[in-house]
Amino acid sequence: MKKEMTLDEIYAPVEARLRAVPSAIFEILSTPNELAQDVIQYFFSAPGKLLRPALTCLGAEIKGLRPIQEKRLIALAAAFEVFHAATLIHDDIIDSAYLRRNIPTINVKWGPELAVLVGDYLHDKAIGAIFAGGNEKIFSLFLQTAGLVCDGEIRELKEKDNFNLKEEEYLEIIDKKTAALLACTIETGAILAGVSAEEAEALKRFGRYFGIAFQIVDDCLDFTGNEEEFGKTLGADCSAGVLTMPLIRLLQLVDENRKSEVLKIFSALDGSLPVRQAGTVLQGEKSEGGTNPFQVLLAMIREYGALEYSIEKARLYRDKARLELSIFPDSPGKRSLELLVDYVLERNR
Amino acid sequence: MKKEMTLDEIYAPVEARLRAVPSAIFEILSTPNELAQDVIQYFFSAPGKLLRPALTCLGAEIKGLRPIQEKRLIALAAAFEVFHAATLIHDDIIDSAYLRRNIPTINVKWGPELAVLVGDYLHDKAIGAIFAGGNEKIFSLFLQTAGLVCDGEIRELKEKDNFNLKEEEYLEIIDKKTAALLACTIETGAILAGVSAEEAEALKRFGRYFGIAFQIVDDCLDFTGNEEEFGKTLGADCSAGVLTMPLIRLLQLVDENRKSEVLKIFSALDGSLPVRQAGTVLQGEKSEGGTNPFQVLLAMIREYGALEYSIEKARLYRDKARLELSIFPDSPGKRSLELLVDYVLERNR
Repeated sequence: MKKEMTLDEIYAPVEARLRAVPSAIFEILSTPNELAQDVIQYFFSAPGKLLRPALTCLGAEIKGLRPIQEKRLIALAAAFEVFHAATLIHDDIIDSAYLRRNIPTINVKWGPELAVLVGDYLHDKAIGAIFAGGNEKIFSLFLQTAGLVCDGEIRELKEKDNFNLKEEEYLEIIDKKTAALLACTIETGAILAGVSAEEAEALKRFGRYFGIAFQIVDDCLDFTGNEEEFGKTLGADCSAGVLTMPLIRLLQLVDENRKSEVLKIFSALDGSLPVRQAGTVLQGEKSEGGTNPFQVLLAMIREYGALEYSIEKARLYRDKARLELSIFPDSPGKRSLELLVDYVLERNR
Repeated sequence: MKKEMTLDEIYAPVEARLRAVPSAIFEILSTPNELAQDVIQYFFSAPGKLLRPALTCLGAEIKGLRPIQEKRLIALAAAFEVFHAATLIHDDIIDSAYLRRNIPTINVKWGPELAVLVGDYLHDKAIGAIFAGGNEKIFSLFLQTAGLVCDGEIRELKEKDNFNLKEEEYLEIIDKKTAALLACTIETGAILAGVSAEEAEALKRFGRYFGIAFQIVDDCLDFTGNEEEFGKTLGADCSAGVLTMPLIRLLQLVDENRKSEVLKIFSALDGSLPVRQAGTVLQGEKSEGGTNPFQVLLAMIREYGALEYSIEKARLYRDKARLELSIFPDSPGKRSLELLVDYVLERNR
């Protein structure tokens, strides 16, 4: 693939629709409540990748959408982004993260109390918009998805500090907490475009595989990313006690001696985040001498090839995702989906 | 009214339906996620007043319900209780409350992280059940209500430590955060029983007035209640910086000197809660000597008759609520609603 391809280029076939999403988001979230307004303006001032709206639009594009459905599609695409934002806001409370999309998180700027409520508010507004814009099938699919997301997140919390977490269990968790929503967004677009049940199922599976690949890469970036490019707190998973694939792989490979070393470092990092603030020395790239625990851990992860292993797994899911697209005839929408899975593997944000 | 009347006696006309609610709640919340299961079992092991399910059932009873709707009614009644539970779980994070229904809150027992996620989980499950059990009208009404609840709670958070908060503003906040859901529950029951639009509106207004009276009394109990009977943290509002009617009234009446005294006490109490644990000396009834700041504040509130004033206001809303029932012919259901508003004024839990 062309490594230099930007998201804008990949999104080209649905560019006009995606341009309409931000104002649709603000329409969904319009409120006379001034404090809520301030927080909403603040959060959405930092643009995300709009991955979920893009998938909704591309899901519709792959079969072609009747113009009459245009407005509903944009409303649904925006609603998914709002729902995703709600989960991010609550996630940032749970992880005590201080940085999101390169700006301080809501819990840092306004406190966790307001973050809880604004998350709830976005959550409800998203549901209202999906109900209004969707149909019974779409809304049922969405409700089921919301349940999976919560289930995955509760599982993740339960497995914190569980050093015996298996790779399959990790994959099951990220399938629920991340991939399920991505699958729902693309399937929704496809349903709106009137695909067959078989085609909808294929796109749903595409979304699941794509989502798993996406999350594995995200979890690698939590170790190796550049905080400024990545736009969120680095080392957040370790600090929250969450084991992800690179660490699970490392623990599989090391002998007992080194294993206890890893566990010691991990325990030292666990809970270290809340006292750190944006702008201080980062756990990864920028610290001097390489003697801080995070860097020691990272060095071991590199030594054992656990990152390469993880990326290799992500590639496997990319391939599975691409395979699901094979039943569709070539089209600009399909091409974009193919490029998007490649992009996810090469991304650094 | 007969002061000794119990909730069970008042609920008599809908007793059989209410008995079916707990198992309907567990049906809505059934999950293979063991951690979620544990938390759900724990939370619902402490019975609440089931006010929302009771209102749903009584709303249906006031006109008579066709037997075919029976199952839907119970499912909706249970779903409202689940939705209410979700808001309580998040509220307890926000207020750092340690006691709810006489047992430690989820944030105390499992930490705020899990409380955020389990609140989200209950929220989603409730919405799913209301969608499944309701119809378009009921679900739209509910979504609108959920928006009001959030809006009211964000307003309340915004007005923390605002010593200039006016009584009307306080009333607007409690109307949204508390009364709107009570109104929605009774209107839903009535819609299911096939009432006219006019009758539905009257019951909705009943619910709003009832809810306002209920919340004013609740806010008085936060000052004067017995923690064991009340079942939740006393003095929680002051400790969270929330001004309620007794305090707003006191601030209206005192001169500048005493006002600054009140503000000093309030500021001292603000934020004092998180370090306290269930079982320690209570802020109100049980401390010795009466010299702690909460007792000084309470003495001033009593001296200026601010509690009587608040209860008088609650009575006014009780009367407004009862007036809305006048369009309905006498029935056991109607009688229960009348008794319920009286009960709320006399309650101590």
